[in-house]
Amino acid sequence: MARLIDSNEMASWDKYYRINLLNKLSGFKSACLIGTYDSHKNPNLALFNSVMHIGANPYYLGFILRPTTVERHTYENIKSTNQFTINHVNSSIYQQSHQTSAKYEKGVSEFNTCNLDEEYIDGFKAPFVKESKVKLALTFAEEQLIRTNQTRLIIGKVEKIILPEDSVETNGDIRLDLLESTIVNGLDTYFKAYFLEKLEFARP
Amino acid sequence: MARLIDSNEMASWDKYYRINLLNKLSGFKSACLIGTYDSHKNPNLALFNSVMHIGANPYYLGFILRPTTVERHTYENIKSTNQFTINHVNSSIYQQSHQTSAKYEKGVSEFNTCNLDEEYIDGFKAPFVKESKVKLALTFAEEQLIRTNQTRLIIGKVEKIILPEDSVETNGDIRLDLLESTIVNGLDTYFKAYFLEKLEFARP
Repeated sequence: MARLIDSNEMASWDKYYRINLLNKLSGFKSACLIGTYDSHKNPNLALFNSVMHIGANPYYLGFILRPTTVERHTYENIKSTNQFTINHVNSSIYQQSHQTSAKYEKGVSEFNTCNLDEEYIDGFKAPFVKESKVKLALTFAEEQLIRTNQTRLIIGKVEKIILPEDSVETNGDIRLDLLESTIVNGLDTYFKAYFLEKLEFARP
Repeated sequence: MARLIDSNEMASWDKYYRINLLNKLSGFKSACLIGTYDSHKNPNLALFNSVMHIGANPYYLGFILRPTTVERHTYENIKSTNQFTINHVNSSIYQQSHQTSAKYEKGVSEFNTCNLDEEYIDGFKAPFVKESKVKLALTFAEEQLIRTNQTRLIIGKVEKIILPEDSVETNGDIRLDLLESTIVNGLDTYFKAYFLEKLEFARP
């Protein structure tokens, strides 16, 4: 049997129930840590589940940022320094990575409090996560303020990619499951990926 | 050992290698079928890997649409009828779902050619996928044209949710792995989710 829920029922729900269920219904996402630094050179690290592909040539990625009605350190830092890193969470660090989602004071380094190591690579100023196996360095490219609810789409241009030697096959395939990149559903539930199949390009 | 790739190296790659690798590096995504209909009442179905959470109250979801330099039936239909459905792909239908990504002529129903069943629920005019276990009905809310590369973010307001009776716990939890919602990485590689852990809300 199916259950049908309409928008009136959604509006009537307890806030926690609504946020929990509706975040989960958008499906499985990759868990990523975004690294930034502020104008005093303090590093900042925050967990995001909304990293998305925008384009491959040039390589652009985006992510969704909630309304800036409370302090958003990641946003302020990107706007002031123009740089950020995206680091794939993996099975060895998903618990520490989740802890970065706590509301720490401005200037507190989640690297220190959450037991993750900063790493600086090839002159890029924003911090990478040493324990992450797939790391991307981005410069800020564009933001779009979404009118319906004042969230923002932040887009960056990928300047550098760091990944394990020999992880990419000659056709560009990479097996993120073997690198243990972690999946999150909603704000709290973590999964790993179990390979089903690679399918051919579809033709009519 | 790590491999460092810069934007010059990315630009030098063969197009297929670039698209394949760079789509995969944005991480694991949920595979969803978007159902629409055109002004002649022809149904259309297309696979998307970019469905994202925009807000829970009201409930808004979004997805990324590639530049409209070629025919984009989903986009044209949403703009002309104002409605679409999002249907979670599951382990039983991921192969047929992948086939909807082939470039069929305008007016061809991917339901027929890809062996998926149309379903109409509660007076909503856009078609749902009968085989899908988690289905959402949306009305068009907003679009944002991304300046960097002319892709679009399409946002809809969720009007109805259809899911299996008893699939939601009293706290709003739902186990999409048990419903076999399917994960895709890049454009061609499919995974299922293996549960790791639900973590508590993080506090400093």
